[in-house]
Amino acid sequence: MLHEDRLFPADPGTRAIARRLYADIRDLPIISPHGHTDPAWFAGNAPFADPASLLVTPDHYLLRMLYSQGVPLEALGVPRLDGAPVEADSRRIWATVSAHWHLFRGTPTRLWWEQSLKQLFDVDEVLSPGNAAAVHDHIAACLGRPEYRPRALYERFNIEVLATTEGVLDDLAHHKALAASGWRGRVITTFRPDQVTDPDQPGFRTHVQALGAMTGQDTEGWAGFLDALRQRRRDFRACGATATDHGHPTPATADLSPNQAAALFARVLSGRFDPADAELFRAQMLTEMAGMSLEDGMVMQIHAGVARHHNPLVTGRFGPNRGDDMPAAAEFVRSLRPLLARYGNERDLTIILFTLDETTYARELAPLAGHYPALRLGPPWWFHDSPEGMRRFREQMTETAGFYNIVGFNDDTRAFPSIPARHDVARRADCAFLARLVAEHRLDEAEAAELARDLAYGLAKKAYRL
Amino acid sequence: MLHEDRLFPADPGTRAIARRLYADIRDLPIISPHGHTDPAWFAGNAPFADPASLLVTPDHYLLRMLYSQGVPLEALGVPRLDGAPVEADSRRIWATVSAHWHLFRGTPTRLWWEQSLKQLFDVDEVLSPGNAAAVHDHIAACLGRPEYRPRALYERFNIEVLATTEGVLDDLAHHKALAASGWRGRVITTFRPDQVTDPDQPGFRTHVQALGAMTGQDTEGWAGFLDALRQRRRDFRACGATATDHGHPTPATADLSPNQAAALFARVLSGRFDPADAELFRAQMLTEMAGMSLEDGMVMQIHAGVARHHNPLVTGRFGPNRGDDMPAAAEFVRSLRPLLARYGNERDLTIILFTLDETTYARELAPLAGHYPALRLGPPWWFHDSPEGMRRFREQMTETAGFYNIVGFNDDTRAFPSIPARHDVARRADCAFLARLVAEHRLDEAEAAELARDLAYGLAKKAYRL
Amino acid sequence: MLHEDRLFPADPGTRAIARRLYADIRDLPIISPHGHTDPAWFAGNAPFADPASLLVTPDHYLLRMLYSQGVPLEALGVPRLDGAPVEADSRRIWATVSAHWHLFRGTPTRLWWEQSLKQLFDVDEVLSPGNAAAVHDHIAACLGRPEYRPRALYERFNIEVLATTEGVLDDLAHHKALAASGWRGRVITTFRPDQVTDPDQPGFRTHVQALGAMTGQDTEGWAGFLDALRQRRRDFRACGATATDHGHPTPATADLSPNQAAALFARVLSGRFDPADAELFRAQMLTEMAGMSLEDGMVMQIHAGVARHHNPLVTGRFGPNRGDDMPAAAEFVRSLRPLLARYGNERDLTIILFTLDETTYARELAPLAGHYPALRLGPPWWFHDSPEGMRRFREQMTETAGFYNIVGFNDDTRAFPSIPARHDVARRADCAFLARLVAEHRLDEAEAAELARDLAYGLAKKAYRL
Repeated sequence: MLHEDRLFPADPGTRAIARRLYADIRDLPIISPHGHTDPAWFAGNAPFADPASLLVTPDHYLLRMLYSQGVPLEALGVPRLDGAPVEADSRRIWATVSAHWHLFRGTPTRLWWEQSLKQLFDVDEVLSPGNAAAVHDHIAACLGRPEYRPRALYERFNIEVLATTEGVLDDLAHHKALAASGWRGRVITTFRPDQVTDPDQPGFRTHVQALGAMTGQDTEGWAGFLDALRQRRRDFRACGATATDHGHPTPATADLSPNQAAALFARVLSGRFDPADAELFRAQMLTEMAGMSLEDGMVMQIHAGVARHHNPLVTGRFGPNRGDDMPAAAEFVRSLRPLLARYGNERDLTIILFTLDETTYARELAPLAGHYPALRLGPPWWFHDSPEGMRRFREQMTETAGFYNIVGFNDDTRAFPSIPARHDVARRADCAFLARLVAEHRLDEAEAAELARDLAYGLAKKAYRL
Repeated sequence: MLHEDRLFPADPGTRAIARRLYADIRDLPIISPHGHTDPAWFAGNAPFADPASLLVTPDHYLLRMLYSQGVPLEALGVPRLDGAPVEADSRRIWATVSAHWHLFRGTPTRLWWEQSLKQLFDVDEVLSPGNAAAVHDHIAACLGRPEYRPRALYERFNIEVLATTEGVLDDLAHHKALAASGWRGRVITTFRPDQVTDPDQPGFRTHVQALGAMTGQDTEGWAGFLDALRQRRRDFRACGATATDHGHPTPATADLSPNQAAALFARVLSGRFDPADAELFRAQMLTEMAGMSLEDGMVMQIHAGVARHHNPLVTGRFGPNRGDDMPAAAEFVRSLRPLLARYGNERDLTIILFTLDETTYARELAPLAGHYPALRLGPPWWFHDSPEGMRRFREQMTETAGFYNIVGFNDDTRAFPSIPARHDVARRADCAFLARLVAEHRLDEAEAAELARDLAYGLAKKAYRL
Repeated sequence: MLHEDRLFPADPGTRAIARRLYADIRDLPIISPHGHTDPAWFAGNAPFADPASLLVTPDHYLLRMLYSQGVPLEALGVPRLDGAPVEADSRRIWATVSAHWHLFRGTPTRLWWEQSLKQLFDVDEVLSPGNAAAVHDHIAACLGRPEYRPRALYERFNIEVLATTEGVLDDLAHHKALAASGWRGRVITTFRPDQVTDPDQPGFRTHVQALGAMTGQDTEGWAGFLDALRQRRRDFRACGATATDHGHPTPATADLSPNQAAALFARVLSGRFDPADAELFRAQMLTEMAGMSLEDGMVMQIHAGVARHHNPLVTGRFGPNRGDDMPAAAEFVRSLRPLLARYGNERDLTIILFTLDETTYARELAPLAGHYPALRLGPPWWFHDSPEGMRRFREQMTETAGFYNIVGFNDDTRAFPSIPARHDVARRADCAFLARLVAEHRLDEAEAAELARDLAYGLAKKAYRL
């Protein structure tokens, strides 16, 4: 089922080059500088409960495709906010997934799943109603064994560093427990302040107050608010963080005077603000965060352009991250100008940009990153983190940004078991791209080999200061 | 001239896979669920008049390219609205086309034409001034023979079902005559209400009145207007319709209260409305049509995003559909939200989306269709219904929407003789795409064979409820 | 280093076709109908000063990439506007470039440079710190020899015609000197009036006054202003110009009445205008220029959609063209409508469109050029003038616009030594594209051979009336 040449170009000469490049990098350690795994797994190291709750229920790629073809989320064990009963039998959930497995033909979900099932559980069959119970029970049995506990998997996966993401108000207890445990795995946090930088988030004012309580700063005022953020950045760095992350609806930035910013903060805190105020405040906060990154050396990630919670029925019944977020068109050239005019020429600052709008690759992101010293580009994100998506990314970015303004791969996942498969797909896709350049005499093979190692390992480590 | 491997990838291994996939589907019956052929042809079964009026004058792809290089539309026999004389000699028109045939190198028009001429008329030469008269006269002679009459061609083309498109005010006489004729061909209609749902269409008010006269409903009022539409939908279903079609300048939708909608209807009917009213009315009507589709089971097609009648000289002199319509940028994620919030989770509803803006494929349409149960995606439309266009469509849609949220091929043509060639190009393009996935070990060949049959036949039949 | 098959597809059968097509066109003369070389070089025929000032300092592709990775522009010899010292030692500048040469992997800059260095100076090594001094000194020695003077290079490059670009207020002294010199090279000018058609350009009012002084027309009034432009167009034609060029932030056009236009001109000339006035004036001037092109036969080029001077630090310190210009999203279908409604059907007018927004290729530009007799499409521009960019251009344009509505290659460069390499890359890229069509049986090889010659030579010559 898992062919050793999967994702390599069909032309025999090009494929031979891809094989050689890949053989050299396949076993490099995994650098996972951005993702959403749960630090509690590694702190507690408890066994995973069952196949469905580990592999199905949290996988929003899986949920969205099955839902699109009429499978109720209740049948996949997704808990309802109103507490109404949902399917709780892991084996029945597994049977539902197996009965619809053909829907994933041609999708990255299938690549990730099949590689994970094979490499982790030695499952070597295409999922089907006929094998659902047997496969499920085999996996369930595995999960009970010590070598399937979170830390054992981390080590087996050859992970060198794994970053989780915590909100600004997180007490970081799991990370502190991890540090105290003496385990040699390197699981670090990432600072994500959206709760207090986005006035449109529910509970914004409460969060700002909680930030004050947590830090002892007067977060009712602009100066105290900024100092509280500085303090929390320090706390996160103490738990290993080298980066911040900012999930904004647009990449708008602003560069207000301190007085203007303070007045805007007072307005959004009062609750009497309009959508333009909220957008301007988010915009100003990106510039403030860039300034703090210059102070404290944290790498800044901007994930911009998602229309979240598109389906009110799904969000209302099941909450966020159930597969109804949609990409939005994005604009970077004009939006980033205020921030870049202020900080874009700083060589000690690293800002990594992510987009869900591929039209900005060649038109905006590559030209921007190919000029500003402070900018780097993140890998293809979310819907575009797939073989065709990665090919388009390299083809549209490389000629203007080169290879060295791009930071290497992120798995960006909460699906821990799929991490090796996700990195493997990316490594194969990059070797396929590089092999074509070699076959077309646009790169020497020795250069391509060096680049393959950089793309798989070195660039992420360097960009995220790991 | 027509190589048996045309449109297949050059790599020998991949080509061999494509050949095997194609051999298995090349002779499947044609499902043509959306198009613009004339039902009168099949009702009357009269011989086609001559080569130019059958093949040249109605083909807006051909007209636009020749016009772009300086050929007057008059020289192609396109009638002028002012009645001024135009070329009427089919042989001279054919000579003009033949003299400019090199302009079509690299275009789908050439693929469709050359395959039609070969398979239908056994013409095996590239058109040129040297063979223009002979080829013309040969075709003209064929058209006089019984086996070239519309019904005979329908049968020879192995069409299983062919949908035409009629406006809401059509009396459906040809379809009724067809049903009464006892001919076994299945030519069905499609309900297209744009004349009474788009206040910017010339004669809107008159059309609404005619709708009232036709149905006996009081179409001056909102409730009567809606009932009249329900009644006409019933009439169309009686003539075989399983689908509706909506050609709107944008995919904007709205979900007004009945009172708001009634007031808006009164405003647009009064003639005293601004462009925003017209857009809001079209938007509301899409949601109303979705609601009626849920009631009566008709599949809803939305063809959105065309800047029609771009060239006032051409439209003014020759009327619509002469090659001066242009694509427009489109936005779906925000535009469809009102309709989807109301009906998007309905599993018994099917809404098929079409676009002329390829940037929405991976960014908007695939994510939407990969989540909402009511949504499906139509095939590449109009300017993008071409080998490269189909390749981009599959590459950009499949990873997020999968294969099963896309409805298979539409020929969408008024050029009846080209229907087999158009389906053949699509089948070849899909086999080429599937063969690459197999060659790159992303699909088993047995799965690809099943998919090839679904893409060529099964998905269209199922989605359109045929 | 320079493989004879570079840029050709890897599949052996397709590559063999590409080789045959290329062998037939590789030695065709160069038509360079749009670019930015300095006519003073050819008028004076002085030796080029040194490697850095010839090859490094003026190359904004090179500057932007090096700057993005932390190299100060001062270290590359870029003069500062404030006169502060910058690196002046050509050899040290060369060493800086060589030390960062790996940054250009996968970029067109590397292709152009390495081919130029090999073919012009017989440098056959990848640049590195180890060979920097030797390579530099070798090139410096070459530049002192007579066969490296501008006219000798022009002849060696097999250039048939080379167009420079001069502003409306240029005295054309170099072109006049060239004409008087008796040298047989054909170096012609191009008329670029942006200084007096764009009210947002610094010094607009002064430039309009200078235009009056230069022509003896009353350029304070609309009629005199237009007559002055007519006169200057005549002057440029006397120096060989066959074309005009218009660099506008957007492709907006307008078609005002003469009275409206005169009032608008008075307003922008007064200095009391808002951004909408400036945009409308630029829009009107495009239509005026199209009208004059119809009068005098000059081909009109529109290069629209650049966000210039994005980085205030770089622009403020070093001035324009230092690598901080960015592409902007563009819209053509609606924007060009006023101009096209007036002049789009003119068969004696040629307007060539360029864009930095690839999303407009298949959606807007190909459909427009595939209909309007007056429109042609320019080749991929600036950031997209690269192997992948050219491939996307052909794949997205050809099916709707065909080959004959596109004008062939422009090098558009101020880097004179790279001109043969740039044309060679384009010829190879076009042969690669054509070879695929032949291999997929979409074109005969004889047709492809004819097209290859047209794309490399004939179409540019014809479109620019050379």
